[in-house]
Amino acid sequence: MVIGTGLIGTSVALAARRAGVTVYLADQDASIARAAAALGAGLATAPGERVDLAVVAVPPGQVAPVLARAQADGLASAYTDVASVKGEPEREVLLMAPDPARYVGGHPMAGRERSGPASANLFDGRSWALTPSALTDHDVLECGVELVRRCGAEPVTLPSAEHDEVVALTSHVPHLVASLMAARLAEVPGASLRLAGAGLRDVTRIAGGDPELWADIVRANAPAVARVVRDMRMDMDRLTLALEGLAGVSDRTGALAVVTELLARGAAGAGRMAGCGPVVQAIRRH
Amino acid sequence: MVIGTGLIGTSVALAARRAGVTVYLADQDASIARAAAALGAGLATAPGERVDLAVVAVPPGQVAPVLARAQADGLASAYTDVASVKGEPEREVLLMAPDPARYVGGHPMAGRERSGPASANLFDGRSWALTPSALTDHDVLECGVELVRRCGAEPVTLPSAEHDEVVALTSHVPHLVASLMAARLAEVPGASLRLAGAGLRDVTRIAGGDPELWADIVRANAPAVARVVRDMRMDMDRLTLALEGLAGVSDRTGALAVVTELLARGAAGAGRMAGCGPVVQAIRRH
Repeated sequence: MVIGTGLIGTSVALAARRAGVTVYLADQDASIARAAAALGAGLATAPGERVDLAVVAVPPGQVAPVLARAQADGLASAYTDVASVKGEPEREVLLMAPDPARYVGGHPMAGRERSGPASANLFDGRSWALTPSALTDHDVLECGVELVRRCGAEPVTLPSAEHDEVVALTSHVPHLVASLMAARLAEVPGASLRLAGAGLRDVTRIAGGDPELWADIVRANAPAVARVVRDMRMDMDRLTLALEGLAGVSDRTGALAVVTELLARGAAGAGRMAGCGPVVQAIRRH
Repeated sequence: MVIGTGLIGTSVALAARRAGVTVYLADQDASIARAAAALGAGLATAPGERVDLAVVAVPPGQVAPVLARAQADGLASAYTDVASVKGEPEREVLLMAPDPARYVGGHPMAGRERSGPASANLFDGRSWALTPSALTDHDVLECGVELVRRCGAEPVTLPSAEHDEVVALTSHVPHLVASLMAARLAEVPGASLRLAGAGLRDVTRIAGGDPELWADIVRANAPAVARVVRDMRMDMDRLTLALEGLAGVSDRTGALAVVTELLARGAAGAGRMAGCGPVVQAIRRH
């Protein structure tokens, strides 16, 4: 069953239905669950008996309370979630839930950064992190793996702390960087944007996500996000000094070398993301 | 005629050929001009007489010297270029070229941030800046406008200084921001990138551009780029403090408000770029 029928919850339900699974839908707003049912995502009724797995598809800060209530009601044999942060929900589940051994954290790498309708195909070929805690029963993890496979995704099992470090770098900080850039465009004259190209649109696209939801994600993963931002700020400080050197009369050759080195490291990183050919050897800072 | 048959020069030649214009091609490496001719971009031979317009398609730092030589040889009646920076080439042309009145700066908003083959369609529907100096003859500007229209693009006429301010914001700083983000990925374990999604790929894509070329662009527009980076750095400093607040025990509500405000301004800016509906009113800093 799926608890919380937003974009991700409904997409999980549709993908499970596609794999022939019977799915029950619930949402704190029953009309939203009925709308998901109308899309073919499952049945917007209470299951008659305990289900095998409940997917809690709510924002990070609500995972533990919603899960605790569901476990108290005995809704399912196993539980997972889909929040973008895994450490905080895990800690809270360990503290609050009646049976933390029956929970495995989950995070599908899809969808949230793109808006659009729910889709059974949202997870096809994507990675889907599973983060068992020290208490998670082995069969609960197995149950999570089966859900991931049935949704067409590839399970990646790792500890919640490691997951949060990685997504700070690959998802949360990129979102903040896109926001920092896009924020500069919020008040410029519209005429200026006539000189904007596809590059700017690419860089800023994910900044269009829901500010409240993303603030909650950043809050829940603040220590790891802060570490990445701090590293980036060092590069930005060097870049600022170099730009002031290039704009002024001081050492222009050294300043140009700093800018070129940053651009070369950027190109190396972008090359890895594009997956185009072998990993380019990064030019190291001296 | 087109002088410099790289991606942009060859694409301009192909687009002009598509419009029925006779095009001569030249490059400091004659084999590259012949390769462009083999693509149907024109004739890799010297024109028998003075041509109407020469397009100098070389990096920003080389525009003035190449143009000065072409004017000394009496190659064309009018001259333009395609460099991403317009103030520095204009100043240098005014200082070095035999006849600066016969030059109008140009910058098509296409192509450079995406790699790929030269194409006659590269400029279709795109903006193409033209930056007449105080000396530029009116018929030279007209000639530039005609080139832009024949290439399928939309002319946007503005002073070189204003152009450089705008592209610092819409092109050069976005490139540096993408590089700052991508640089963080250059040395992380490959396994971490399994948890990367389409958002990260979007944010970092333009960082894949040629570091030497982009360092030259940033150098040539350093004062305007420095101003935008300085504004962004202020936001980043506030963000860093807020993240440290969220990670620690200090004022978490105030810190969350700072993060939410930045994300909301970013969403407003991204909304303008996406062109999806009316301009969202940005939440202002207090």
